[in-house]
Amino acid sequence: MSNLKIDSLNLHRKHQGKLEVRSKVAVENQYDLSLAYSPGVAEPCKEIAEEPAKVYDYTMKGNTVAVVTDGTAVLGLGNIGPAAALPVMEGKALLFKTFAGVDAFPICLDTTDPETIVNTVKLLEPGFGGVNLEDISAPACFIIEQRLKKEMNIPVFHDDQHGTAIVTLAGLVNALKLTDRTVAETKVVVNGAGAAGIAVIKLLHSYGFNDLMMCDTKGAIFEGRSYGMNPFKEEVGKFTNREKREGLLAEVIQGADVFIGVSAEGALKPEMVRSMNKDSIIFAMANPNPEILPHLAKEAGAKVVGTGRSDFPNQINNVLAFPGIFRGALDVQASDINDSMKIAAVKAIAGLLNEQEIRADFIIPPPFDARVAPAVAEAVAKAAIESGVARSLLAFEAITQPL
Amino acid sequence: MSNLKIDSLNLHRKHQGKLEVRSKVAVENQYDLSLAYSPGVAEPCKEIAEEPAKVYDYTMKGNTVAVVTDGTAVLGLGNIGPAAALPVMEGKALLFKTFAGVDAFPICLDTTDPETIVNTVKLLEPGFGGVNLEDISAPACFIIEQRLKKEMNIPVFHDDQHGTAIVTLAGLVNALKLTDRTVAETKVVVNGAGAAGIAVIKLLHSYGFNDLMMCDTKGAIFEGRSYGMNPFKEEVGKFTNREKREGLLAEVIQGADVFIGVSAEGALKPEMVRSMNKDSIIFAMANPNPEILPHLAKEAGAKVVGTGRSDFPNQINNVLAFPGIFRGALDVQASDINDSMKIAAVKAIAGLLNEQEIRADFIIPPPFDARVAPAVAEAVAKAAIESGVARSLLAFEAITQPL
Repeated sequence: MSNLKIDSLNLHRKHQGKLEVRSKVAVENQYDLSLAYSPGVAEPCKEIAEEPAKVYDYTMKGNTVAVVTDGTAVLGLGNIGPAAALPVMEGKALLFKTFAGVDAFPICLDTTDPETIVNTVKLLEPGFGGVNLEDISAPACFIIEQRLKKEMNIPVFHDDQHGTAIVTLAGLVNALKLTDRTVAETKVVVNGAGAAGIAVIKLLHSYGFNDLMMCDTKGAIFEGRSYGMNPFKEEVGKFTNREKREGLLAEVIQGADVFIGVSAEGALKPEMVRSMNKDSIIFAMANPNPEILPHLAKEAGAKVVGTGRSDFPNQINNVLAFPGIFRGALDVQASDINDSMKIAAVKAIAGLLNEQEIRADFIIPPPFDARVAPAVAEAVAKAAIESGVARSLLAFEAITQPL
Repeated sequence: MSNLKIDSLNLHRKHQGKLEVRSKVAVENQYDLSLAYSPGVAEPCKEIAEEPAKVYDYTMKGNTVAVVTDGTAVLGLGNIGPAAALPVMEGKALLFKTFAGVDAFPICLDTTDPETIVNTVKLLEPGFGGVNLEDISAPACFIIEQRLKKEMNIPVFHDDQHGTAIVTLAGLVNALKLTDRTVAETKVVVNGAGAAGIAVIKLLHSYGFNDLMMCDTKGAIFEGRSYGMNPFKEEVGKFTNREKREGLLAEVIQGADVFIGVSAEGALKPEMVRSMNKDSIIFAMANPNPEILPHLAKEAGAKVVGTGRSDFPNQINNVLAFPGIFRGALDVQASDINDSMKIAAVKAIAGLLNEQEIRADFIIPPPFDARVAPAVAEAVAKAAIESGVARSLLAFEAITQPL
């Protein structure tokens, strides 16, 4: 076993997991106890019973996010079940706290039925300020997210979709600057029509890209394609590939400016990169092994290459997005995380690098850039206010102070 | 408003609630991140997927308890709903951590339907090592607890029932010593047939008391009583009041040795105490105002008086029980919290005071006696092993070290 594997097992075993639940108040004597618990605790209870919005003042709700999974699509491991998914959910919660001070808690559900998941998560609403869906397989994840967004009063966000989409687009925005391309004229092919791919292409469309194409293993998707479709691909077909080109990736990639892979190891061959336009942009984000190795893509003519990995330049890492996004949403008690908030996050992440800093191997801030989460939080909070989903302006004033 | 009320509101508002979720491991650089999160985190996931019991080694599950409520019977406030119950659940979780190092997390459910509560809590099992039910009204709480105990593989405990019963019995055991009474010959009347009362009388019966009577607002309960019954009172009728005496508390209390009130302010009058046997024992646990004030009970002839309050002697406080009980149950990965574990907790709490220490105003350790939780934990863990519900002997060895 590699050092990384051994170290990880030891780390997880050492403390019996990674998270703990702690008190923010000291209880050292009888009076402390009578404030934090009976009889004093009756006072905030009564205030909330009378005026429900006060739950944000007197409880943990407003800073607490449920990290919900059914364990069906965990990392690259597939359907390993909710208990085996717990280390990932703890890790996610740890990142929420470390990067943005958000208290996140794993909810690993012993069901894979979308209807049951929806009903269960709705029942948990009183204690949480937001819901981060995680590692739920497609297409169930789309249905679950749509239903929860509609039926809950707190923000719901499927990180595997939107976190990936936001960070990808942030990297792309800077890569376009570097290669002197405009959004309107850039031709993008997204390979992989799972949760991440569909979210990426939809966000690109929202952002103004209009020469978009999506491929799955059967080739280019277009409206009315008669094979391998589902309602989510149909929706993508409506705003992509307007010429209804047919063909596998190797054909339709010809003449593209950008390749975004959320597919599988080795899906992009050097000869395909050679068929793309000059100074192409390649985001090969299959994990742990990318669609093409960066040096091969470069040799074949790519100008900018990003992957999901930390050992190559330009890591497209969701940790740049989700902590700040929830921080911002919670700070203004947003009822939703909408497209304008997502695009605000994109701009905040991309905007942290000025035009002088941007280089082919530096198009996106690294995960430990401490400026990222506060910048994202502020931008997201402002967008929430401007788009009318913020419920607390008072809280917004507080966030203009440094975190 | 009193100082206590103002201080409590300020305390709850100051930090936006009382709990936070924190990382037990530092994530300060790329390598830390690659251990705690992707890609290293895949290793414990794979190990658990292969061997499910390893979830106790590599995750927080084994030290984590869900504090579950529907908000229907919160303190003395009644059905104030799950959001308004959150301060109490946070307080409970805080006590779990403070007194026994258990990570507890509030789960406030937006439903009052017992079937829905049962199904929801079962779905949460992958992430939790135990379930503490809290402030759920009777009779739903009995049904929910019974179902969950049967259908889940982790220990389930309704604190309002069993925590109260355990601490009450611990106090009673010492009060009997002080007044030279034997369990077999002591005549006990329990007033109030809600969740706490029914659990108290059942635990007393398990412990060997056999002259027991329960009263509700309609008077003494007996098998086959034709009015105001339910299945839980019927069960109580089978082992109490064998003479089937009828009558209100004022009548049936005559000649009793012990009064245990889990009923309402003022339910026990001085003349009723006068009608009891000499040196009677009165636990008047209605909150916040007891069935009788201690000085009035003493004047009427009581030898020992306990209440639920910290400002009188002999506080019957659940905090003496639940932290150590779950500590012990979790330490041996118990699948249940059974009667022998509850009675082990009773003996551990009572046994902390030696016969020289026991006085009329000191029959039970105070909440901040640091010996309580470790003593309860060890006794409960041993009882779990002896009664065959422990799943980890290895963990048991660890707990014989000081906490």
